[in-house]
Amino acid sequence: MAKLLVSKWLNTQDEISLDRLQGNVVLVYVFQMLCPACILHSIPQANKIHEMFAPENLQVLGLHSVFEHHDAMEEISLRAFMHEFRVKFPVGIDKVSIRKKGIIPQTMEKYSMQGTPTLLIYDKKGELKVQHFGHLEDMELGFILGTLISESVS
Amino acid sequence: MAKLLVSKWLNTQDEISLDRLQGNVVLVYVFQMLCPACILHSIPQANKIHEMFAPENLQVLGLHSVFEHHDAMEEISLRAFMHEFRVKFPVGIDKVSIRKKGIIPQTMEKYSMQGTPTLLIYDKKGELKVQHFGHLEDMELGFILGTLISESVS
Amino acid sequence: MAKLLVSKWLNTQDEISLDRLQGNVVLVYVFQMLCPACILHSIPQANKIHEMFAPENLQVLGLHSVFEHHDAMEEISLRAFMHEFRVKFPVGIDKVSIRKKGIIPQTMEKYSMQGTPTLLIYDKKGELKVQHFGHLEDMELGFILGTLISESVS
Amino acid sequence: MAKLLVSKWLNTQDEISLDRLQGNVVLVYVFQMLCPACILHSIPQANKIHEMFAPENLQVLGLHSVFEHHDAMEEISLRAFMHEFRVKFPVGIDKVSIRKKGIIPQTMEKYSMQGTPTLLIYDKKGELKVQHFGHLEDMELGFILGTLISESVS
Repeated sequence: MAKLLVSKWLNTQDEISLDRLQGNVVLVYVFQMLCPACILHSIPQANKIHEMFAPENLQVLGLHSVFEHHDAMEEISLRAFMHEFRVKFPVGIDKVSIRKKGIIPQTMEKYSMQGTPTLLIYDKKGELKVQHFGHLEDMELGFILGTLISESVS
Repeated sequence: MAKLLVSKWLNTQDEISLDRLQGNVVLVYVFQMLCPACILHSIPQANKIHEMFAPENLQVLGLHSVFEHHDAMEEISLRAFMHEFRVKFPVGIDKVSIRKKGIIPQTMEKYSMQGTPTLLIYDKKGELKVQHFGHLEDMELGFILGTLISESVS
Repeated sequence: MAKLLVSKWLNTQDEISLDRLQGNVVLVYVFQMLCPACILHSIPQANKIHEMFAPENLQVLGLHSVFEHHDAMEEISLRAFMHEFRVKFPVGIDKVSIRKKGIIPQTMEKYSMQGTPTLLIYDKKGELKVQHFGHLEDMELGFILGTLISESVS
Repeated sequence: MAKLLVSKWLNTQDEISLDRLQGNVVLVYVFQMLCPACILHSIPQANKIHEMFAPENLQVLGLHSVFEHHDAMEEISLRAFMHEFRVKFPVGIDKVSIRKKGIIPQTMEKYSMQGTPTLLIYDKKGELKVQHFGHLEDMELGFILGTLISESVS
């Protein structure tokens, strides 16, 4: 079963889990707050999508997966970042590694991600349909969302 | 029945008609070659879509609907424009008005278009689903295409 | 003496010549109306400069040098282009070649230009200081203009 | 005398002061690492200028003036930011306020800056010629630099 390993959710009071979101298309933006491509491309795109779609059609989530400069991107910095860049959707903090000196956080490791930004897209059945490293262009992403949202679950 | 009133098709040997394209999603970019928004936004987007999608899923057409500066945008100028801006999809020339001193070409008048760029989107059954004046953003257009292409016709 | 070989000036009642403009810094945008880089980069930059600087400091001129698709870019098409793209500065039409079947217009040939866009920059003494093929970035061009305009002529 | 009140310089071994830089044109980008306009516009522009001009003509400096979210933008976060955004010029950390609960750092207060980004431009004599709140467009900035660099000091 698809799972995000998160130590804390920001921007939400709810318990967030992919299980509970089943029935919705779910988009997870995996980012680091000091990753240039994330700031320049992914966060603006995520904000735009979050405003475009009703949550019953599409749920946008963020996952802050820090794999370098850990001390520079603590929760307090992430909160300021989210405030300044007007991130309104729920953002989870990827659980720190349980390995001694492990630098790759747990969800990032579990999915064998190559870095940030990474985009995860789940269909209504909760199946991971897209795992994309780097920025996904608006047209292509819009097309994928149109396809997945129009699927009927039965 | 949806119809484009065209005096001549460029960039194709085929007889083009919306009838024959039924079963496909069809996108018609209505433009004027000297309209700034067309040049800056619509033509690049049309070219990108034309490259992204296989014709059996999506057919991109252009319609050159001149409603001002008629002498400045004759076929010979249009041909040079299409060459310079690498337009590879079929482009029809909207039929000149049959009214005395009529300046609005026939398809443009029939659809009551407000100007250029205008985007027409037909579903697989040949029904006009979107008529949009101005530029339609990539994300939104991608979403519409994803929805229409995943519809089954039966 | 620097000279532009022009058959006709548009957008001005004045007799334009580099001689008469001596004492001013003069910028000449050599373009073709259907050249993509000219439309996307040079014309917007030329319009911006034309609005930024007083004519006693800087004179912006255009030169329409057609070296391909001649029939597609006649004066009537150029006029519509200038209207649509809000070109307000004087634009000269480069004189057609006197060679039999010559396709390169006279100023373009005289300056051995490689194509369009080409930018010519003359200092206050009327000397050609820059001849640049392709787009010149805003920062670099701004710097050159700052340098040339602050030169005193004596 | 113009002065920057700095607790520590990063990216340099030298003692930096406006005094010592006299004879050069000096550009000071006052920024906060989590300010969107700084990240999107000022830092890329500062990096470009730093690469374009030889230091004997133009010295680019940064000044990190944190006036909000102080805990989020400590030196360790700033260092990671500078690494990720390839900032190669010297960056000073604006001295924290000496007022009780003061949040505006000392240089920012001294110059009565309204926020970030702010650009300070000093001429070769060390005089502050420009203090600009917000982003300054490339063309305009290039022009100012061209003017100031061509001034002779005597």
